[in-house]
Amino acid sequence: MKIAIMGFGTVGSGAYDVAMDAGGIEVKKILDLQIRKGYEHIADKFTRELSDITKDPEIELVVEAMGGIDTPKKFVMECLKAGKHVVTPNKNLISACYEELMQTAADNGAELRFTAAAGGGIPWLYNLLRTRRCDTVREVRGIVNGTCNFILDAMHDSGADFDEMLAEAKSLGYAEANPAADIEGTDTLRKTVISANFAFGTIIKEEDVPCYGIDTISAADVAYLKEKGLVCRLMMNARSENGAISAYVEPTAFPVTSLEANVKTNNNLITLVGESVGTQSFFGQGAGKLPTGESVVQDIIDIREGISMNIPSAGQDELSVDNGSAVHRYYIRHNRMCEHIEPFIDTFEERDGIYYCLSKPVSVADMHALAQHRKEKGKPMFIAGLAE
Amino acid sequence: MKIAIMGFGTVGSGAYDVAMDAGGIEVKKILDLQIRKGYEHIADKFTRELSDITKDPEIELVVEAMGGIDTPKKFVMECLKAGKHVVTPNKNLISACYEELMQTAADNGAELRFTAAAGGGIPWLYNLLRTRRCDTVREVRGIVNGTCNFILDAMHDSGADFDEMLAEAKSLGYAEANPAADIEGTDTLRKTVISANFAFGTIIKEEDVPCYGIDTISAADVAYLKEKGLVCRLMMNARSENGAISAYVEPTAFPVTSLEANVKTNNNLITLVGESVGTQSFFGQGAGKLPTGESVVQDIIDIREGISMNIPSAGQDELSVDNGSAVHRYYIRHNRMCEHIEPFIDTFEERDGIYYCLSKPVSVADMHALAQHRKEKGKPMFIAGLAE
Repeated sequence: MKIAIMGFGTVGSGAYDVAMDAGGIEVKKILDLQIRKGYEHIADKFTRELSDITKDPEIELVVEAMGGIDTPKKFVMECLKAGKHVVTPNKNLISACYEELMQTAADNGAELRFTAAAGGGIPWLYNLLRTRRCDTVREVRGIVNGTCNFILDAMHDSGADFDEMLAEAKSLGYAEANPAADIEGTDTLRKTVISANFAFGTIIKEEDVPCYGIDTISAADVAYLKEKGLVCRLMMNARSENGAISAYVEPTAFPVTSLEANVKTNNNLITLVGESVGTQSFFGQGAGKLPTGESVVQDIIDIREGISMNIPSAGQDELSVDNGSAVHRYYIRHNRMCEHIEPFIDTFEERDGIYYCLSKPVSVADMHALAQHRKEKGKPMFIAGLAE
Repeated sequence: MKIAIMGFGTVGSGAYDVAMDAGGIEVKKILDLQIRKGYEHIADKFTRELSDITKDPEIELVVEAMGGIDTPKKFVMECLKAGKHVVTPNKNLISACYEELMQTAADNGAELRFTAAAGGGIPWLYNLLRTRRCDTVREVRGIVNGTCNFILDAMHDSGADFDEMLAEAKSLGYAEANPAADIEGTDTLRKTVISANFAFGTIIKEEDVPCYGIDTISAADVAYLKEKGLVCRLMMNARSENGAISAYVEPTAFPVTSLEANVKTNNNLITLVGESVGTQSFFGQGAGKLPTGESVVQDIIDIREGISMNIPSAGQDELSVDNGSAVHRYYIRHNRMCEHIEPFIDTFEERDGIYYCLSKPVSVADMHALAQHRKEKGKPMFIAGLAE
């Protein structure tokens, strides 16, 4: 099968490397402004013209690994309209434009696949959709952002503060120069939307999913939780119950003996709960050149062999998210008790003017509203759901 | 698709239940000597005649869930020769007769699938073989026996002795009346052979894989390891390095912060290490009516949809197992220091006439030979590899 790759950064070149090892895939064109270091021997494949790809009848499939939304969307739409299959690990694109892209693919007899868009090298979406062939998925949850996990794990082990470990993540290449999408939870949010849509065969919107990141966590939080035998992780959460869907992103404090608490460095662990199959988890590298490249190549091979990913067809019901009945206890740290917080609190300790609290059972909707309100007032607190 | 089920025990009836939920699968005949309680409403499907299945041209696929080797082998061979596809979770059958069955299937244009034979409800073999489409698997390892994991986990939590927790496992239905295949490691051994064969595209023999179970572990072992921050698990292990394959089953002592140490009750966790994808683990129920039934139904759907499991074709090279270069340290507990043991020991403590030792790095071949020798002499010791 002859293919093209658009965007030859980490993931694009990783897909190239894995495809070369796999055999049976020929990369005919690479769309990028510059020739990546180490790939000078294939300089003749590089082009800056999209039409070199869309107008080449030999190219059956195009990998989009450019990142971002606007340009990739334009390019992917052109490829689909030219009848080319498209494989992309681009979660921003899929989360934002899923329906439109799927419809365009269907209209043009092309396949669109994106296993790497959530879980990176972990065959998460593939197995999630496979499970749905004969089971009803009730819940998806997991550690899906390696940057945050690296920071939280390093803070737990070293006792260091957030900024220091963020700097270390940057120096190791685990965090971008602008890490906002990771630490504020937006990356996790997108993977939550994609996973929930496939798990429950529905369409939910990013803006309906409350999201609290890890950018307000302190060394004192980690130390306090550690004293209680708890380890903090940033989690995607989505559940379907009685026709209602809850979905949210928040830090979660896990017992030290849980699987999540023992996911080290930048690894991911993603879980589904099926009515028949029970709890099933997938662990591995959620990012990185070769692991993500491998998921891209698996999608290519599936398309080549005519294997369906079992993606629900376009035109699913749009369902609103209701986090009013998702109720659990929280750890809350803040530095000023007020009438908004007090009703939620079950027990607390004051140390040096800082309040370390455990809440009563409270709805995700109420807790995120409070946390958001405090953030807007410039008095951010840190919250973490308590895993049951 | 019309199918038949041979053997309507826990797994056979689980496959039936999941197939009914999945839709698109009609169970036309059930071969069993008695009608299972709760299934009286489908009494008309039951038969005691294999020919009712093999001679029915409408039946395209047969599930074998009888257990054992001799009769299932005979029945499966007849089904394959009649051109029926066969799905079986029977690890004993697959481990013992893999080549012959695969050849018969190929000769008759039939498919043979057995995802549930290792990992139960976990899509382990499916994903292992899928990984091999574009990656080289270097290692497989894991907790693949839920009965042993239940006993080891309960011993660790409660401090109770082996016999007590084995009795509890029996009373909860996690262990059979005769638990030998579980606690002596034979069940894990079969899953090791199946997993290694697929991981490395080769054929190894059961008798070449040394196997040390958990039947000699004591509460004192568990307590000693716990003091050192270690948790014992029974592991399958297989590695391919420089054309040589090491493969063995043994208890392993894991740091309390590892994933394996935090696999609770009767769950399984199975890991592959791929050159590109790195370390990837699959967690879930390795047994049980509905989880195992789900893996059987996934195989049925794959056959129906023409999806290959990527099973290496019959006629692979037979490779001998070499555990001489698989070297690591061991925990060893015994009650008599002798000239066979002493050269291996790095440090030891004596408590009440019992020696608790940590070994120097020693080959798996040498350590298993010693442990086997002591067992035959009636002076069994307990050994556990130390995870790195």
